[in-house]
Amino acid sequence: MTRLDVVTIGNALVDVLSYEDDDFVARVGVERGATTMVDATRSEEIYREMGPATEVSGGSAANTAAGVASFGGSAAFVGRVADDAFGKIFAHDLRSAGVTFESPFSGNDLPTGRCLVIVTPDAQRTMCTYLGTASALDAQYIAPDIVGNALVTYLEGYLWDQPEAKAAIRKAAELAHRGGQRVALTLSDPFCVERHRGEFTELIDGNVDILFANEQEILSLYQVDSFDEALAHVRGACEVAALTRGSRGSVIVAGDDVQVIEAHPTQVVDTTGAGDLYAAGFLYGFTQQRPLEMCGRLASLAAAEVISHLGARPETSLRELASRVLAT
Amino acid sequence: MTRLDVVTIGNALVDVLSYEDDDFVARVGVERGATTMVDATRSEEIYREMGPATEVSGGSAANTAAGVASFGGSAAFVGRVADDAFGKIFAHDLRSAGVTFESPFSGNDLPTGRCLVIVTPDAQRTMCTYLGTASALDAQYIAPDIVGNALVTYLEGYLWDQPEAKAAIRKAAELAHRGGQRVALTLSDPFCVERHRGEFTELIDGNVDILFANEQEILSLYQVDSFDEALAHVRGACEVAALTRGSRGSVIVAGDDVQVIEAHPTQVVDTTGAGDLYAAGFLYGFTQQRPLEMCGRLASLAAAEVISHLGARPETSLRELASRVLAT
Repeated sequence: MTRLDVVTIGNALVDVLSYEDDDFVARVGVERGATTMVDATRSEEIYREMGPATEVSGGSAANTAAGVASFGGSAAFVGRVADDAFGKIFAHDLRSAGVTFESPFSGNDLPTGRCLVIVTPDAQRTMCTYLGTASALDAQYIAPDIVGNALVTYLEGYLWDQPEAKAAIRKAAELAHRGGQRVALTLSDPFCVERHRGEFTELIDGNVDILFANEQEILSLYQVDSFDEALAHVRGACEVAALTRGSRGSVIVAGDDVQVIEAHPTQVVDTTGAGDLYAAGFLYGFTQQRPLEMCGRLASLAAAEVISHLGARPETSLRELASRVLAT
Repeated sequence: MTRLDVVTIGNALVDVLSYEDDDFVARVGVERGATTMVDATRSEEIYREMGPATEVSGGSAANTAAGVASFGGSAAFVGRVADDAFGKIFAHDLRSAGVTFESPFSGNDLPTGRCLVIVTPDAQRTMCTYLGTASALDAQYIAPDIVGNALVTYLEGYLWDQPEAKAAIRKAAELAHRGGQRVALTLSDPFCVERHRGEFTELIDGNVDILFANEQEILSLYQVDSFDEALAHVRGACEVAALTRGSRGSVIVAGDDVQVIEAHPTQVVDTTGAGDLYAAGFLYGFTQQRPLEMCGRLASLAAAEVISHLGARPETSLRELASRVLAT
């Protein structure tokens, strides 16, 4: 196995996206802007209510891997899909994006997971995830020749919603640190932080080197009211924290080094994947040993590309975009 | 069954779209800009070579039905899908667009058909169609309560590629004419015209009331070199012919009435569905008994909407768009 820049571990999902009006979210009864976990029956019910949809591969951590590959970095993804149409679409899209994906098809009769993405006129997305076989991620699928070989092992917070995945997460973090590599975590969603605050705080304290969170998530994690308080907390907890603030850009903290990065201007169509691609740009820069400020600019550029169209993966080569826009 | 404006009959397909460079089309060895029929194995081979893709419901005649419904017309589609993931996506997308779709799932072990759509940097599309169970369209599925109840029965030329469908086509045309309704035909593709010129000419002469064709197709049909010659031929053959000329707009001929319609200006992203939506706009206007010039303007507007984004069905309400842009 050759050396990898980044391996990401998360729920393998195909996104089913449709444009809906604001009433739709209220009618379906889910939390606007957040991710709600649903079972197979509820997923079918909501799908029946949705308008004509577009299917594209998604899954937060998988989107990040695709982003790293689009920059020209070497990336792998670990997660589970079934041997069905959605599973084949997921595997195809990831591999053809240049991402190493070797997790075997699961054989547990659960279908490939799907995420119903409701895009409202304000370009905000509301997500309803049915995990399906994505939940079958246990420790045996954390291949040491993949995780041990990556400069950064990136975990999505959504994994904590599956009790079985916890052993896999621990194994991945141990393998990474044993090889002297970095562990990165994204908090994923404010409600996810609500559900797992204790475990996240414990993990971050000593086991996470690079933390990604948006403003709501980091305020919720430390149960504080101001961004500055959250910043003070996170500064001591991990080597680097990259905190995103939507259109107000992001702040990167590494000990005494604080970089304030502007959002890259764009026409927003669909915010799905903004955080995932921010992480991709950051991690690509980080593994190329670029200064933190450039990591932040690459992150903002990737996020801007993905929110300018429907779907959570880049539609243009981020490598070419970066060389044109940032002259990297 | 309530009265319908339009019923369309054609191959039920899910489109698998990816952006590729020009070399890709040459490498795969298919005709650029055209539709090539492929078998399951070849379809898999080409898919493996394609980059990350987006899945959206397609099928030429089904796109037209979705377009009519988007204008607020009543539309139905007749075509076959299997009880698999793509079949469910196809049925969902059509019904949620407001189109009546009552064809039962086929049970012949063939999967739902798919069309690999290769979009090149010039926004041109090259299509590779694996019909799968779409080919199982025989006469028993032409329900008299649907076809006999529609003001226009619209047939796609691609149907002639399936020998079994011919009885279905004949039955549909007979049912329509017996009820005093119109039969419409689209020639679909220049290569399709090459394959079925004799049958098309025979059918058009006396059995087709409304003909849709682009310039290449109508020149090929009559084996003439100039658009004016083709126009002279078609003028006597059917009640109305709507001939499209890409960015040069279209010409509508109905006996001595000749309307020259400009293309509606837009930013072209992907030409997939341009002809299908042109037909939708025209047929909506026609069934609303609008003058031919307005039918043409509705047609151009619908075509412009669909080529401004990826995928072959409207992403905005054509009814609202028409009332805003054309003040209809």
